[in-house]
Amino acid sequence: MSVVLRPGVAVQVRVPASSANLGPGFDSVGCALGVWDVCRAVVTEEPGLVVEVSGEGEGAVPLDETHLVHRAMRAAWSEIGVEPPAGLRLSCENAVPHGRGMGSSATAIVTGIVAAFALVDVSSGEWSGDVDRDRANSLAARLEGHPDNASASVYGGVTLSWTEGERTTTVHLPVHPDVEPVVFAPDVQLSTARARSVLPQQVRLADAASNSARAALFAYAVGAAPEHLVEATRDWLHQEARRGSYPESMALVDALRAAGHAAAISGAGPSVLVLAARDRVEDVRAHGDDRWRVHTPGIPACGAEVEVLAGG
Amino acid sequence: MSVVLRPGVAVQVRVPASSANLGPGFDSVGCALGVWDVCRAVVTEEPGLVVEVSGEGEGAVPLDETHLVHRAMRAAWSEIGVEPPAGLRLSCENAVPHGRGMGSSATAIVTGIVAAFALVDVSSGEWSGDVDRDRANSLAARLEGHPDNASASVYGGVTLSWTEGERTTTVHLPVHPDVEPVVFAPDVQLSTARARSVLPQQVRLADAASNSARAALFAYAVGAAPEHLVEATRDWLHQEARRGSYPESMALVDALRAAGHAAAISGAGPSVLVLAARDRVEDVRAHGDDRWRVHTPGIPACGAEVEVLAGG
Repeated sequence: MSVVLRPGVAVQVRVPASSANLGPGFDSVGCALGVWDVCRAVVTEEPGLVVEVSGEGEGAVPLDETHLVHRAMRAAWSEIGVEPPAGLRLSCENAVPHGRGMGSSATAIVTGIVAAFALVDVSSGEWSGDVDRDRANSLAARLEGHPDNASASVYGGVTLSWTEGERTTTVHLPVHPDVEPVVFAPDVQLSTARARSVLPQQVRLADAASNSARAALFAYAVGAAPEHLVEATRDWLHQEARRGSYPESMALVDALRAAGHAAAISGAGPSVLVLAARDRVEDVRAHGDDRWRVHTPGIPACGAEVEVLAGG
Repeated sequence: MSVVLRPGVAVQVRVPASSANLGPGFDSVGCALGVWDVCRAVVTEEPGLVVEVSGEGEGAVPLDETHLVHRAMRAAWSEIGVEPPAGLRLSCENAVPHGRGMGSSATAIVTGIVAAFALVDVSSGEWSGDVDRDRANSLAARLEGHPDNASASVYGGVTLSWTEGERTTTVHLPVHPDVEPVVFAPDVQLSTARARSVLPQQVRLADAASNSARAALFAYAVGAAPEHLVEATRDWLHQEARRGSYPESMALVDALRAAGHAAAISGAGPSVLVLAARDRVEDVRAHGDDRWRVHTPGIPACGAEVEVLAGG
C-alpha cells in the first residue's frame, strides 16, 4: 500500500479494559470491562512525536517513541507496509490502572493498532466507518503474546480466542443477563512477566482434563446456566501456581468462592474478578476492605470505538 | 432401606450407546448414540441367576454373576443397602458393539443400575415413573472410572460431566439441529487398542491451555456455531498419544478433518465419530470403505428408558 499519512488527519479511539485467564480459560477467555482509555491521535505538520498522558500512568510511563501506544502504531503500520508520518501527536486519557491484571497493556496495544489503521484508512479515503478488527485482533494478540485481553478489548463482551500461526480467531460467548462483573483492584502492583515465570511447564494429564471440562462448562454456564459459574471458574493451570505471588488476592478468591461467588484471579493478578449474580452484587462488594478498590464496571458489548475527528 | 425385592417384579430397560472423550472433552464430553441395548430383568421365585444374551456379545460375554449388567445391579443394591434377590433372570438384546469405543460397558453398567433401582422402587411401592438418574449417574461414573460415556447413556444428548468426590454432575450441552453424528465402526479387527496406560502422565502447560480453549469452543460451537466444530474438536490430550494404537482410525480422522469435517476418535477408539453438518453427511459417509461399518444413529435427546413390565 502506498498510502501517505496526511497531516491534519485525526482520530479518537476509546478502548475498554479487560479481565483475562478467566478461571479455566487461561490464555483464552477474556471479559471486557467498562473502564476506558481514550486517545486522540493527530498527524502533524511539525515533525517529531508528542505524547501526552493524563490519568493512570501519568508521570510514570515514557513519553517518547517507546510509549506502548506508539509502539503498537508503528507495528501496525509496519504490518500493512505504510510509512510512519514525520509528525504525530498522541493525547491519552487513561482510566485503566496499570499492573493490576485489568489488561492495561492490551488496552494500549489495541488503542495504538486501531488508531494506526484508522489514520491510514482516513488518509487513503477508504474509511468505512470501522477498522479491520480481525486484523487488529491478530496483531494485538501477537504483540501481547496471548490473545485473551486484546480480544476482549477489540470486540467487547466475553471472548474466547485461539491462535493458529499468526492468526487469532475470536468468538463471543453469549453472556446471561444475570451476570455482573465485580472487580477488586488492590493498591499494589505485580509484574505480569514475573507472574508468568512462576508457572510450571508441565501439568498432570488429569488436571488438564479437569481444566478442559470446566472450560467447556464455563462457555455453557456464562450464557445459559450462571448457577454453575462457581464450578465453571475453577482452574488447575495458573492460579494455585501463583498463589505465593498474590496471597491476599487468593485469600479473597477463597473467601468469595466459599460464600458461593464465582471468583477468580483477573489476568495475572493481583486483581480479583467475580462474575456475580446480579442480585448478590452487594454481598460480593461487602467482601472488600480498605485494601481494595471495588468496581462494577459492566461488560461493554462492543469493544474499541473509533471516531474520525478530522479528515485532513 | 429394608426393601425386599419381590418375585414377579419385572422391568425392561433400554439404554443408548455413547461416544466419549469427544475431541478436547477427554473424560468429560459424551454424546448419546441411537443404538440401544435392551434388557428385561425379572425377580424370580426359583433361586439362582439366569442370564440370556442375544445380539452383540452373544457367545462371548460370561453368563454368570460376572456378567457386567449383573455386577452393576449388585453394586447398585449395595449402594442403597438392599439385599439382592435369591432369584433373578436377565434377558439382554444387545445392539451396541463391544470394544469399539461406542460405550458398550457404560451401556451395560447403566442398564444394570437403572434396572436395579427400578426393581427396588417397584418392589417398595414407590415407583415414580423414573429412577433417581442423578444417583445412577454418579454410581455409573464411579463403576466405569470416568463419567462421559455413562452420563450420555443416562441422560441422552451431548453431555458435559465432572466429578467431585463420589458425586458426578452432568449438564446437557444444547445441540444445533444441523449437527448429525456419523460413526465409523471397524468391521474387521483393527490393530488392538491399547489401554489408558499409553497416555502420558504429564502434558505441557501450553497444550493444556490450548485444549481447554477448544473445550470451551466445543461447548459453544455444538449448540450455536457448528461452523467452528472442526476447530472445536481438536485435542491435545489423548488422540495423538494413542495414534500408534489405532493408525487406521487416525488416518481416517486426518482425512475427514482435512476435508473439513469435525472428526475425532470415539472414546478410546478404534471407532471414529464425526459431528457432521447435516447437508454433508453423504460426503462424510463416502470416506468409509469396506473396513468400516458406517452408522448415522442420531442423538437420542433422552437417555435410559425404563418400563415396568410387572409389579409382582
